Amino acid sequence: MVKAKKYVVSNTFQGPPKRDDFKIVEYDLPPLKDGEILLKTEWLSVDPYLRAYNSFLQPPYDQFGFQVGVVQETKDPKFPVGTRVVTHKGWCDHVIVKDVIEKTSEPPIEWIYKLPDLQGLSASLALGAVGMPGATAYLAFLEICKPKSGETVAVSGAAGAVGSLVGQIAKIKGCKVIGFAGTDEKVKWLKELGFDEAFNYKTVNIQTALKEVAPNGVDCYFDNVGGEISSSVMYNMSKGGRVCVVGSISSYNDDPTQLPKVTIVQPGILFKQLKVEGFIIWEHKDRWQEAFAVLVKWIKNGHLKAPEHVTTGFGNIYDAFIGMLNGENFGKAVVKV
Amino acid sequence: MVKAKKYVVSNTFQGPPKRDDFKIVEYDLPPLKDGEILLKTEWLSVDPYLRAYNSFLQPPYDQFGFQVGVVQETKDPKFPVGTRVVTHKGWCDHVIVKDVIEKTSEPPIEWIYKLPDLQGLSASLALGAVGMPGATAYLAFLEICKPKSGETVAVSGAAGAVGSLVGQIAKIKGCKVIGFAGTDEKVKWLKELGFDEAFNYKTVNIQTALKEVAPNGVDCYFDNVGGEISSSVMYNMSKGGRVCVVGSISSYNDDPTQLPKVTIVQPGILFKQLKVEGFIIWEHKDRWQEAFAVLVKWIKNGHLKAPEHVTTGFGNIYDAFIGMLNGENFGKAVVKV
Repeated sequence: MVKAKKYVVSNTFQGPPKRDDFKIVEYDLPPLKDGEILLKTEWLSVDPYLRAYNSFLQPPYDQFGFQVGVVQETKDPKFPVGTRVVTHKGWCDHVIVKDVIEKTSEPPIEWIYKLPDLQGLSASLALGAVGMPGATAYLAFLEICKPKSGETVAVSGAAGAVGSLVGQIAKIKGCKVIGFAGTDEKVKWLKELGFDEAFNYKTVNIQTALKEVAPNGVDCYFDNVGGEISSSVMYNMSKGGRVCVVGSISSYNDDPTQLPKVTIVQPGILFKQLKVEGFIIWEHKDRWQEAFAVLVKWIKNGHLKAPEHVTTGFGNIYDAFIGMLNGENFGKAVVKV
Repeated sequence: MVKAKKYVVSNTFQGPPKRDDFKIVEYDLPPLKDGEILLKTEWLSVDPYLRAYNSFLQPPYDQFGFQVGVVQETKDPKFPVGTRVVTHKGWCDHVIVKDVIEKTSEPPIEWIYKLPDLQGLSASLALGAVGMPGATAYLAFLEICKPKSGETVAVSGAAGAVGSLVGQIAKIKGCKVIGFAGTDEKVKWLKELGFDEAFNYKTVNIQTALKEVAPNGVDCYFDNVGGEISSSVMYNMSKGGRVCVVGSISSYNDDPTQLPKVTIVQPGILFKQLKVEGFIIWEHKDRWQEAFAVLVKWIKNGHLKAPEHVTTGFGNIYDAFIGMLNGENFGKAVVKV
């Protein structure tokens, strides 16, 4: 009999999630049935969307999220003992899963796949640069922003898991890259990562900064955060500029019926004939492996750095989560169980 | 020697344009040079963009805008006396023009073309349903919203020159059409025009109304106005919905450095993977004639009504303009000189 632990979300969050919005539940796992495998969690992920989807779900529910586990027992011959597996089973230390994909395309999704071939890199990358955030950076940026060599790219939430990758991919594609982040330390770190320009959005006048470093306008804007930064960028774009919206972190803590007001974006969209498109990575599961192969190649040949912000201990997941929501991470926030 | 009159914009507008922001100037036209023609204005147009572009121009400048004139004298054999011509020479009673297109693609543009073949319809339609607004409605709606039969289409500024055409084109394409306008009289008028549903945005809860009449979400949103209506619509769209931004009337009277704040749209764009695109009709001059041919056919066969709101008299153009900006017009606002 295996004892398992998991975090259960017991409340609809009011503003920032609170520690006692989660309950840690201990329970006995039942014996495996045919087709099932038992995983022991090694790494798990905290991401902004965990906050966002809370608004659409009815607690109590198990806190979902990507994690890497190792097969401890198996009744599915495709997954022998010792195999590493990526699932969306979230904040738990052991879990029983089956190899099925749920019909639904939104979290909490049921979906498992074997760890991609990481060529010796840490398995934790399967939660970041070679996981959902990597696939998002690669597919959303290339498909929606359609960057061309010589163009100027702006990235909000640039020091986060997705943003830090997008800036580097833009450099690989021959673009000039401008990043926005929330502290001076992150600004310094972004420049070390290879961003041409980086600004602390809390202290800079974004319009003035962009007029200086992008006098011909931003061609591609990769938007993780929404809010006032995005309005500012959208009034400093070139004709026919492309905006990819992959997140709206700035409003995730707000009541969805009482969203914040920000400077209107329609005149910016209109007069520069911008194309603005929302991107949800769950809709593109068929292309993750394609993205992973390229991302691993770039990491191995040194063109792409994949920094991680590691928290250790099952008991510290909440702190890792709230720290990430508060912007404390440089790169991908992961938890080593 | 021909005496001519024109309206000159003498101030940068502060909020709604004021009567004394315009000066009526009388002057003597010089003799024609080779390639020039002298037009006597018959109809002229007042449109929202005349307000919007003021922010980008340095007064004093002649108030541009579309107008239909008849050739009175000519030194261009392509335009014999009596020919009717559409120009962008604006608020004047006589004007000398040449058959050239300026390189610039933004107002004030220099561009003339012979009156389209209106098959006996009023020449004033060349300023509306068979003019720039008609080309906008046809090209922007079909190219960006890509409506499919059976889909639900929402239109803001629905009783205006462009919106009233878009709703009818959507009906021709087999869509369900919902219109938003600013008075109960307009709502009634929209239903007479064939809109399935119409609402007074000043008195209705848009979210509630849309949940009722578009329970599966709006597939196409044709946005003339921007602002809070647009935020509300964008949170009630179907997955992959298309938003065409052709105007942002709600903010045209505002200082462009002090734009209004409205409910953030990025979460709506993100979670429904919307495609939002700005459309500027000046970029599509090569396709106006194609649009005109279809629009005339639809008007002649009774599928498209082209209502006009006619003001008479050169001295009343300002009143027609401010009335249009205040939403007093039902359909296209034109002035008969």
